[in-house]
Order: sequence, then structure tokens, then C-alpha cells
Amino acid sequence: MRILILGGDGYLGWPTAMRFSARGHDVSIVDNFSRRRWHNENSTESLTPIRSLDERVAAWREASGGREIATYVGSMEDPDFVDRVIDETNPEAIVHYAEQPSAPYSMRSREAAVETQYTNVIGTLNLLFAIRDKVPECHLVKLGTMGEYGTPNIDIEEGFLEIEHKGRKDVLPFPKLPGSLYHLSKVHDSHNIHFACRIWGLRATDLNQGVVYGVETDESAGDERLITRFDYDQYFGTVLNRFCLQAVIGHPLTVYGEGGQTRGFLNIRDTLQCVELAVTNPAEPGEFRVFNQFTEQFSVSELAELVKSSAAKVGIEVSIECFPNPRVEAESHYYNATNTKLHDLGLQPHLLGDELVHSVLGIIERHRDRVIKEAILPTTQWSRGELSPEPPEPAGAPGL
Amino acid sequence: MRILILGGDGYLGWPTAMRFSARGHDVSIVDNFSRRRWHNENSTESLTPIRSLDERVAAWREASGGREIATYVGSMEDPDFVDRVIDETNPEAIVHYAEQPSAPYSMRSREAAVETQYTNVIGTLNLLFAIRDKVPECHLVKLGTMGEYGTPNIDIEEGFLEIEHKGRKDVLPFPKLPGSLYHLSKVHDSHNIHFACRIWGLRATDLNQGVVYGVETDESAGDERLITRFDYDQYFGTVLNRFCLQAVIGHPLTVYGEGGQTRGFLNIRDTLQCVELAVTNPAEPGEFRVFNQFTEQFSVSELAELVKSSAAKVGIEVSIECFPNPRVEAESHYYNATNTKLHDLGLQPHLLGDELVHSVLGIIERHRDRVIKEAILPTTQWSRGELSPEPPEPAGAPGL
Repeated sequence: MRILILGGDGYLGWPTAMRFSARGHDVSIVDNFSRRRWHNENSTESLTPIRSLDERVAAWREASGGREIATYVGSMEDPDFVDRVIDETNPEAIVHYAEQPSAPYSMRSREAAVETQYTNVIGTLNLLFAIRDKVPECHLVKLGTMGEYGTPNIDIEEGFLEIEHKGRKDVLPFPKLPGSLYHLSKVHDSHNIHFACRIWGLRATDLNQGVVYGVETDESAGDERLITRFDYDQYFGTVLNRFCLQAVIGHPLTVYGEGGQTRGFLNIRDTLQCVELAVTNPAEPGEFRVFNQFTEQFSVSELAELVKSSAAKVGIEVSIECFPNPRVEAESHYYNATNTKLHDLGLQPHLLGDELVHSVLGIIERHRDRVIKEAILPTTQWSRGELSPEPPEPAGAPGL
Repeated sequence: MRILILGGDGYLGWPTAMRFSARGHDVSIVDNFSRRRWHNENSTESLTPIRSLDERVAAWREASGGREIATYVGSMEDPDFVDRVIDETNPEAIVHYAEQPSAPYSMRSREAAVETQYTNVIGTLNLLFAIRDKVPECHLVKLGTMGEYGTPNIDIEEGFLEIEHKGRKDVLPFPKLPGSLYHLSKVHDSHNIHFACRIWGLRATDLNQGVVYGVETDESAGDERLITRFDYDQYFGTVLNRFCLQAVIGHPLTVYGEGGQTRGFLNIRDTLQCVELAVTNPAEPGEFRVFNQFTEQFSVSELAELVKSSAAKVGIEVSIECFPNPRVEAESHYYNATNTKLHDLGLQPHLLGDELVHSVLGIIERHRDRVIKEAILPTTQWSRGELSPEPPEPAGAPGL
């Protein structure tokens, strides 16, 4: 199958590209290296050393016995570039990761918020028109997020909800209460893609993904040149990866607020499984299909305890500390989300346990000299954006 | 009260500015003349001759006995401009009409779709940050549209819906099924504004407005220099205004498809009443309040019959013709929307009848020499965008 991976240089995009290539598909990558640029701007970096895209592709060719991955460098915000890529690759499936993926980044400033919604919404709009006009049969597999739903007081269903109201019934999009301007951009995308399916007959699968953890996949194991990025900084790090890093460097695990925030989680290996299941079982023409893509639910406190207990088994003493929550969010709430559709397609989950934590701890240990400690703690507050390190004194009140 | 009208040169913005000025408020207008530019680009124009903004403001000063309206020319997409306006006007209420308001325009091309979502979503985002950082107590009154809801098979409530699901309950945003990329931009706005209220404690009222008809208001009556625009072209004309114009020029009323499309409608005088009610009864801090702003529901066929019968009473013979529907939409559907909140605040509706139709027919008659007939019929199809007048022949099939 001809498969295009948008954002194919990223944390999930690169392993996804290798996975489909390993299976014999004809894979092309699009990326504009935004993630690398954002790290440069923040003086942060992936813990794992990441090769250039050309070096990765060459290493994969060697490791895979000659498999080729084509690359296109450019932005989804550029409609002419998008058209050219679609013309040249004529894809049967597109996996779309090419978005600004960080909630805290979107909340740091007006500029970052605008950049996030512009990049994500306009990039996806450009793509939808290119699919409509050039490859209308192509199946779009879009990475959304469980964070689109927020934390409603009812069970979260997969994209749609049957509603009975005043004696009448309909099946309507599940109401969304997203928790950041990034999550909002994904809600906007979902609405736009749904429209393209309803009105233009496109076929799409929206993967509302939980929080991903882990770093190794079948294709990267055993060749350091192929490893994907491991982010632990305040903007691009996710909670379990950050806890593991804090465990290794002897920093208390930083639980924000009460720690009762419950979310869906999954192993990066299961991300690849889910995306593969979506691609090989495409949506019908006109269908907007939503899968909730996670395997387990945990609260932040439960995760911290799990890392603490796993780390203890390999002789690492870990403490847990509560920090003021930089986010505005419920810290104790009902949470129960449905995730049966991917299981129905055959998903075999890799559940979270000592084995995964120990593997991540080992990778971090190998690269611990690369840790930038200053990057870990949050400086962005949901209420006011990024705090300058030395806040200016109020005008007219020197010395106060 | 210090009131800022964004889009104050427009069909509703200008009458709104005069209304608040007449009531003694301190009114400022922002506009970048996008609507005038779009008309220039399409070789179309308002039926009523519109003065320049400076001339309008001067005429209003004279007609009102010295009332001043301040003007700011610039775009909401420009954050520095938005900041400067908010700094200089220090508004207590902002009425936000400054968006691309046409569904067909948003569907004509990828460029127009991107322009629509960029202008509307990014402009509103810039505004939300300016309010948060400069005038957090200011009440934002945002013009949304009833088209955000689409045509669900259940009653449409005002912004929120109490949902019972698997034995649990919550009140959640009403699910949206918008019918164009323009309507989607308004859904995106609603989600972003709701977030700003939830997370930053801003106060906002989202007016989900029906289709507006009419042209005269108390402030414009009797002085032609103050009249607002009257659009009847495929992009910016609304259905009742278009029917009245077709009646005057002897063109059959153009009903698209079965004509069973039912929507909420209101008189422009009631738009002003509703906006005034919202401004003078502000939302609470942190509250995102949604009002469904329309006074009556009609199907397109009912409207055509109503215009036909009203016109007959003043001696105008009218025929009705069904045309292929350029939109992809249900042409026969359930529709029942709630609109009690504005009534509870005191709205006294001007219902649709002969008096309004005759007044509109009279205004059109006065300006009938300005009608551009070529502008009326649609060239934009929901399925494929704008059709070129002479479609190119398929390559390799000359003469077919």
C-alpha cells in the first residue's frame, strides 16, 4: 500500500514509518522539523540522540535490507507543497501526525496559541482539499487526542453519543470540553474532518489517543541509530516518561495538584499496532470513524506510585512530591472512557508494568549525561502563560 | 458604557453602532473593510449605496445632534492592532461581528476556506488574549450562528444540553453539525471562547443568530446617508432579502432543492434589540452564555410563498421556481429550536409580515437601477467549490 506519514520525523511518526516499511508498504514521510526547531528555541533536546532524517532513512535502508523511505521537507500550511506531495506519492492511506502536539506550549503565550491553532487547523484544511481534489478514495488516519473530551461526568464514548431528548433520538458528535488551546485545535480538526466526510464523501479515522509512554519498538530495538526521540521537558515530555527520568536523576516525581487527574494511557508499541489496524481496516467512503486509542486508565498519583515501586525493584529510591498545578483542571473527577473498537479489530495491548518501566529506566540511564535539569519544571501557567524567571516589579512600587 | 463594535462598518455592525450611540453610550468601531473588498473582488455591490465610514460617522454626528463614534481601521488578525485598540478604548463591552460571514464564500475554494477559518478563528483568539491581559472584566458579545447546530433530529437547546447516559448526568455543550466551513469557523470560535471563560474567567455571550432580514432601523430611517448595506448576491445575500429583490426585478424566486430547509429568522431591528439586551444584562465572570437569537422558524418554501403573497398585495406578480441545490444539506428534516432566553430578558419581536416585505420591496424599488443580475445565481457548489463559467474540456477528449 502507498502510505504517507505526515510528521514522520517525530516521536510517533518515525517509528510508524519504519513499521509500515518493515511490512513491505511503500512509505513516504513529510516533515518540516518543527519539533527540532521548538527544542532549539527552548534550549532543550530529546534525551535520546536523534539522527538527521537522511541519516535515519539511510540507517533504516541498511538495517532493513534495502527498504526505501521517501522524504519530503515542507509544511502542511503551504498548499502548493501539500498538492505536490499528494501528486507525487498518490497515497492510499495518510497517517497525519504533523501538528503542534503540546498543551503547555499552546498555553505559554498568544503567539504560541496562534501558532498552534494555525499550524494544526490550516494544515489539516489544506490536506482535506488536496485529498478531495486528488485522491478522494484515500483513507485519512488522523491523530487526535483523548484530551478533546475533557473530563465529563458521564462515560466517554468513541466519538459519538446516542442522545434521547424530549422524546426524540439522534446520534450526535460527543460534546467536547478540551483543556487547552492545543486540545481545542484538535477539536477543530475533528469537526472539519467530520464535515469533509459528510459533505465530500471522504473516508477518515480519528484516533483519539491517550498519553503515550515508552521509546523502543520492534524496528528500533538493537540499532541506536533508529531510536525515536524521548522528550521530558515541560513542553513535549509526557508524564510517565518524565517520572522515569526524574527517578533516574534523583529528582522527586512531580505530581501537580492532588494527582487525581485520570487519563487513558498506552505503550508506544500499541500506538503502532492501533495505527496499523486503522490503516489496514479502512473507513468506508463518507465515514468519519472515531477510535479511542488507549489501553489503560491511571490517575497521576497511581502512575507516580507505580514508577516508585518499579524503580525500587532495581534499587532506585524515589520520592513523590506534590507541586502547585500549572494547569487549570479538575484534580479529582469521574473518568470512564470506552475503548472497544480497536480491541474489536484485534488490538493486543502491552499493559504497563515493571518490564516497561525498567526498559525506560535503562534507556534513560544510558543517556543520563544528556539530561538538562532546567527543562523539567513548568514555567507556563494555564492562567497567565509563561512566567518570566524574574517577574518585573510593578510600576510605581519599587522595592515592594 | 464604553462599547467597542468589531466589524462596525458591516450590515449589522453599523446599525448596532448607531443604536448604542443613540442611547448615549461611548461607541468605537473597528473595521478593515473586508466586506467592501470582497464585493470589489466579485464585481458585486450593496444594493443600497453605502457611504465611506468617515462620511457615515459625520452624517451620524449631524443627524444625532453631535454624537461621536470613534473609528479604528485594521484587522483582528493583527495582534498589535488589537492590543492598541483595547488599550485606547478600554471597553466595558465588545460586540464582535468582525468575521467572514458567508457560507457559500467559505465553500468556493481552498483559499476562501482557509481565509475564512484564519480570519475568524485567529482574529477571535487575538481578541481573547487582549481581553484576558487588558480588560478581563469586559463582556464579550460574540455573533455566532444557528447554523452551528445543523439540523439534528432532536430539539436544539441554547448552547448546552443536559445529558443522561448510562445512569449518570452532565450538562455539556450542545453537539454541533455545522453545514459549511464558515459555520465550522463559528463552532471553533464558540469552543475557544467557552474555554477562555472556563479557564481565564472571562465573561461572554454567544449569540447564535438566525438569518437576518430587513434593512431599516430606527436610527437610519429618514436619512439615506445612514442606511446599512443590502446584499443580494450569491455570497453575502440572505434568502429573504434575495427573494424580495427577485420579486422586484421580475425574476422567479429561486428555491434550492425541495425547499424544506427550515431555519430561524429575525428582523434586523430585533438583532439590535437582542444585542442591546445582551450588553445591558452582562454574563457573569467565568460564564459562557449562549442565546439562540431568532424570532420565528420558516422553511425556504414558506418564505417564498410569503413573499409571493405579500408582493401580490402591492400588484407585483411573482413566480417560484425550484433550482438544483448548490449545497449539500437535508432538504426535509425535523427542526425545533429553543429561543426563550432573550424573550426572558424582554425581547419584543417584530414578526415577519406584509409590512416588512412591503418596506423592503420599496427600498429595492428605489435602487432597482443598481441591481447586478449576474450576481444573484450561485456558481459555488458545496461538493466542488466555485464552477468556472466555461468548464475546461476533459484532457484527451476534445469535442465531447
